[in-house]
Amino acid sequence: MSSKERSLFTCLSPALLNLYDVTNSVVVIIDVLRATSTIATALHNGASCVIPVSTVQRCIELGNEMGGITAGERDGKVADGLSYGNSPFEYPRSFVENKILVLTTTNGTKFLHMALDNGAPEIITGSFPNLSAVCEHLLKTEKNVLLGCAAWKDRVNMEDTLFAGAVINRIKDHFTMHCDSSKMAENLFLEAGEDRYAFMRDRGATHYHRLTNYGLEKDIRYCLTADGANVLPIFKGDRLVNG
Amino acid sequence: MSSKERSLFTCLSPALLNLYDVTNSVVVIIDVLRATSTIATALHNGASCVIPVSTVQRCIELGNEMGGITAGERDGKVADGLSYGNSPFEYPRSFVENKILVLTTTNGTKFLHMALDNGAPEIITGSFPNLSAVCEHLLKTEKNVLLGCAAWKDRVNMEDTLFAGAVINRIKDHFTMHCDSSKMAENLFLEAGEDRYAFMRDRGATHYHRLTNYGLEKDIRYCLTADGANVLPIFKGDRLVNG
Repeated sequence: MSSKERSLFTCLSPALLNLYDVTNSVVVIIDVLRATSTIATALHNGASCVIPVSTVQRCIELGNEMGGITAGERDGKVADGLSYGNSPFEYPRSFVENKILVLTTTNGTKFLHMALDNGAPEIITGSFPNLSAVCEHLLKTEKNVLLGCAAWKDRVNMEDTLFAGAVINRIKDHFTMHCDSSKMAENLFLEAGEDRYAFMRDRGATHYHRLTNYGLEKDIRYCLTADGANVLPIFKGDRLVNG
Repeated sequence: MSSKERSLFTCLSPALLNLYDVTNSVVVIIDVLRATSTIATALHNGASCVIPVSTVQRCIELGNEMGGITAGERDGKVADGLSYGNSPFEYPRSFVENKILVLTTTNGTKFLHMALDNGAPEIITGSFPNLSAVCEHLLKTEKNVLLGCAAWKDRVNMEDTLFAGAVINRIKDHFTMHCDSSKMAENLFLEAGEDRYAFMRDRGATHYHRLTNYGLEKDIRYCLTADGANVLPIFKGDRLVNG
């Protein structure tokens, strides 16, 4: 397809995914706080792959089977039976290089598997730390684009919408965009300005409060900053690899 | 409940309604272009009630049974078998006073029946023409509030989100609001400023284009203007009456 024949849609929650035809689309899974930010960071720091799984049990099984790092949190703490958490700062090169990271997340993994089931031919993950890599890839692709916000238990959230808006702001001129969600996301991104941390704080974003209660301000700041881990995670088989 | 113990949530699409407990809530059905704007206008101009129905067939049956005006559009034209359309300008006092209006709408009626099925104890309709009446009612109620955007075939739309934002901007100090959708809606409303028509046009809102293609600029302007038909439509039994 030539430029402008490609469509761009934003899906603000997994519960809305069935409204969109993804059979000729790149689906960008967006789970800014913190799954997709941590995935980008681990791959940027040399992890051989990241395997996203839905449950703690499956994480333990795969970790044993493959000799991988098992990671995931529930209610802000490392889940029972796993070794590490969801913070991007737990995965420096000195630790994660050439290792397999098995990561259990709820919202992002759910959306990824739904996109697969709906026939998406290509799935990547997006977050502010890999914003430019995502945009460059989308500008080159021949496919349509669906920006898929993982949200929070299906409820629309601010940070994933902000990231969708950041992508749209960079690439919109190359797509047809009959999508109010996309226009509202871009509007939110422009309104937020450079200091997205202050915007999330001042607007009282729910996830800002949830993570701040766990003492994770540093994580939030990193996850809202562009291009700190500028790689392209692509889903292949059962895992995300550095594309 | 005292002030601030009441919650306020915004549901951006009927497809997300099941995420919210409405069993102690006033649900505000929002279908700005044009169903709930027309409902407020007809009641403001003296209609004895408005009966919202899902299908053209049901509209014809009820219209015959009750001697009511049958109204509704499909693809921008009065539907086959009905007598009038969806425009608020079709319902001046000289025509609609003391009459029953049977109105078939898709998005708004669907959301209303879902809210009923989910156990909402009180349902009202909201639109810019009756913005103040809605806000005054919500400030007096003892219940929680769910702002329910009827959306477009379940896709989130700009105008219903804008109206939710207008309500939130007026009443938020009296509610607890752990809801990013509400915060984003208010942000959109503030960003739009006074000239919502220009905002919808300049942002390329999908419904702006759809209705403009049918020559309905005047309808859009009216439906985005506050308090032109400042009544409170309350759902009782099977009909909306002037509360």
